[in-house]
Amino acid sequence: MTLDIERLGRRAEAMLDELAAISEEPDRLTRRFLTPEHKRAAHLVGRWMQEAGMVAAEDALGTVRGHYARDGEPEGANRVPRLLIGSHIDTVLNAGKYDGMLGVVAGILAVEHFRDQNQRFPFAVDVLAFGDEEGSRFPTVLSSSAATAGAFDTAWLKGVDRDGISLEKAMADYGLDTAAVGTAALTQEEALAYVEVHIEQGPVLEHGDLPLGVVTSIAGQNRTRVNVRGVAGHAGTVPMTLRQDAYLAAAEMALAAEAIAKAHPDDAMVATVGTIKVMPGAVNVIPDHVEFVLDLRAASDAPRAKALKQFIAKAEAIAAARGCSMTHDTYHDCPTAACAPWLQDGLTQSLDSLGLKAPKLVSGAGHDGQSMAKITDFAMLFVRCKGGISHNPAEFATVGDMGLAVAALIKFVEGFDPAKRG
Amino acid sequence: MTLDIERLGRRAEAMLDELAAISEEPDRLTRRFLTPEHKRAAHLVGRWMQEAGMVAAEDALGTVRGHYARDGEPEGANRVPRLLIGSHIDTVLNAGKYDGMLGVVAGILAVEHFRDQNQRFPFAVDVLAFGDEEGSRFPTVLSSSAATAGAFDTAWLKGVDRDGISLEKAMADYGLDTAAVGTAALTQEEALAYVEVHIEQGPVLEHGDLPLGVVTSIAGQNRTRVNVRGVAGHAGTVPMTLRQDAYLAAAEMALAAEAIAKAHPDDAMVATVGTIKVMPGAVNVIPDHVEFVLDLRAASDAPRAKALKQFIAKAEAIAAARGCSMTHDTYHDCPTAACAPWLQDGLTQSLDSLGLKAPKLVSGAGHDGQSMAKITDFAMLFVRCKGGISHNPAEFATVGDMGLAVAALIKFVEGFDPAKRG
Repeated sequence: MTLDIERLGRRAEAMLDELAAISEEPDRLTRRFLTPEHKRAAHLVGRWMQEAGMVAAEDALGTVRGHYARDGEPEGANRVPRLLIGSHIDTVLNAGKYDGMLGVVAGILAVEHFRDQNQRFPFAVDVLAFGDEEGSRFPTVLSSSAATAGAFDTAWLKGVDRDGISLEKAMADYGLDTAAVGTAALTQEEALAYVEVHIEQGPVLEHGDLPLGVVTSIAGQNRTRVNVRGVAGHAGTVPMTLRQDAYLAAAEMALAAEAIAKAHPDDAMVATVGTIKVMPGAVNVIPDHVEFVLDLRAASDAPRAKALKQFIAKAEAIAAARGCSMTHDTYHDCPTAACAPWLQDGLTQSLDSLGLKAPKLVSGAGHDGQSMAKITDFAMLFVRCKGGISHNPAEFATVGDMGLAVAALIKFVEGFDPAKRG
Repeated sequence: MTLDIERLGRRAEAMLDELAAISEEPDRLTRRFLTPEHKRAAHLVGRWMQEAGMVAAEDALGTVRGHYARDGEPEGANRVPRLLIGSHIDTVLNAGKYDGMLGVVAGILAVEHFRDQNQRFPFAVDVLAFGDEEGSRFPTVLSSSAATAGAFDTAWLKGVDRDGISLEKAMADYGLDTAAVGTAALTQEEALAYVEVHIEQGPVLEHGDLPLGVVTSIAGQNRTRVNVRGVAGHAGTVPMTLRQDAYLAAAEMALAAEAIAKAHPDDAMVATVGTIKVMPGAVNVIPDHVEFVLDLRAASDAPRAKALKQFIAKAEAIAAARGCSMTHDTYHDCPTAACAPWLQDGLTQSLDSLGLKAPKLVSGAGHDGQSMAKITDFAMLFVRCKGGISHNPAEFATVGDMGLAVAALIKFVEGFDPAKRG
């Protein structure tokens, strides 16, 4: 049968609009992990899964999982081998409506299509809606997919958000049982593969006039918390030469990180300081303490590790030159994750069948596939987005491109053959 | 009679300890304008004034004013010419216990001495305890002494604190009548002179092994709010060369301000960025908006004005080079204030009478004298402080030095002759 690309795209758009209306803030989209708005979004997604013919349930991390039974699967069967399709429903602060949500919606629309066509496969299909991909609330990131992959670290429970609420407390408030985290894990036997549809969040597809692309790997990533300590003093009376200003040291460090990343264009290296606290934070007091986080990414691991070392050495020298001290804590270090060639091939064939080119590209952004790689092979399908913009209300993907993405996912599932695993 | 320096110093220390116990925060001293803790401190100071023989009252800005009647003054007399002795009882965040409070306590102890000695003068003595010298709550600074000098600008009422509370609302909550601000003003006939005892907050007296010093002028000061706007984006996918990162621009601007101030050591120029907000403030989002305040001071006005222009031109160039824009608003611009020579002479003579040298020095910090200069001549007596440290819990002045300061103030009042005014 011919797929109605336009209709699939419009369905996706309508669902994304409905999800985007659920926000912590009135005039912009912010939906952090384990907030009441996360719960509302999770309930909506669960309802959609049921309407699409899946059995929906919430796991110990609040991940919504819709199960589309395999051909002849008895009700309540356990440990059924399944193809996993997923993405996330949490957002950054002041987000766009496509990042994450499109992958969840695409999975639901694909399954809905199979149900409508009475199509069953020799494997089950699970659609996963993770809640902690952005890391915009707690110091952790990818904690919900880590739990699905059996790699949740209980030390993460002690991490606190900007209001001092721990992950442990937030889970309890959400109605989750922290003692049950282990029950969220899938086994390697159950997880045949993980595939995710996501907007590109970069400019490559748009520049090439290409609607979809096949991801080869996800760039590795560090998050390093840096604390700089100097000496507070009166802004009017301490001569410039006698100051030990923690903020000026931190400012130099951010610029040093930029210079290091710029020196590695071939490694697609990027460095970002997106959050900084200056203390005590009064206009007329020289800051004595600054905390910031350096987010460092690159297409391969060795240059990234080297760059982080370079940064720390440089930051220590900057602090010393200003009579300050610095400490650092790399609380997140995620290696480059390669997409499985057999799954890349499957995506390439599905694009072929739609008459589309299948360009290959690296993902500069982190994704739940990095967690899922711990238990199974994974792949990603990228969707062109306007101007490469994401994490911003201007984020945009066309109805046509989204329809093609859902169609490509349908074709991928139809052609999926676990026997091709290496 | 011989003054008991040691006893005066110990009294001062005990009173400072009692005041320092009144804080918004359990483990450190923070007492911002119009907070409940400001009110508690004001009540304590009012009680001390009464115990020292003064009639105490609170004006329309919450300034506590203790009135020590002149020789033969009828009860309830109006417009009595008076010598004003004052300082402030608000603090910075995480403050020391001497800044401001010592001047109020010294005034009270001096008057107590006169009362104990049955000394009256041909002029009244008013001790003033201002509440908004640090500017640590609202965008305004010196608003309470401005009201005493009849120079309160009602536009300040709309300024808001970090919680969005306006000065107007805070005054109402404190029990003050914003419509009565004008009643706080003293006339030029009433205000014979204003004198203030204050810790130096710098290293000059300590280096010279001198307990006290006479101030020649207060450095002029700007506070300029700078808003930098760039473009938000995903920390992993926007190449370094395509970024419009508002925070990196702001970091360069802070370093540029430092360089400009360092280039003017002869003008005792200092530049400080003590508060900065980075938005949206997520670890994985390139900042699109940064707001910070530049505090710029110098011993004379022309180089300061020139340096501010230089900074703004440089900041605009930095923003443009990064594809960002910037706006600026100099919401506080206070000229250099000269201390009156006849009052400097009076202080010098009082130090002479105690056998002390009387070094002259510039105040890099702002003080309420800058407001009071609008209606009367003013002078300041500086007290040595350890390491030049202030706005910090490590702030320290010895009992001996504080005793000498109170004694010098007593001698100054005894020798005060309004006929010497120019």
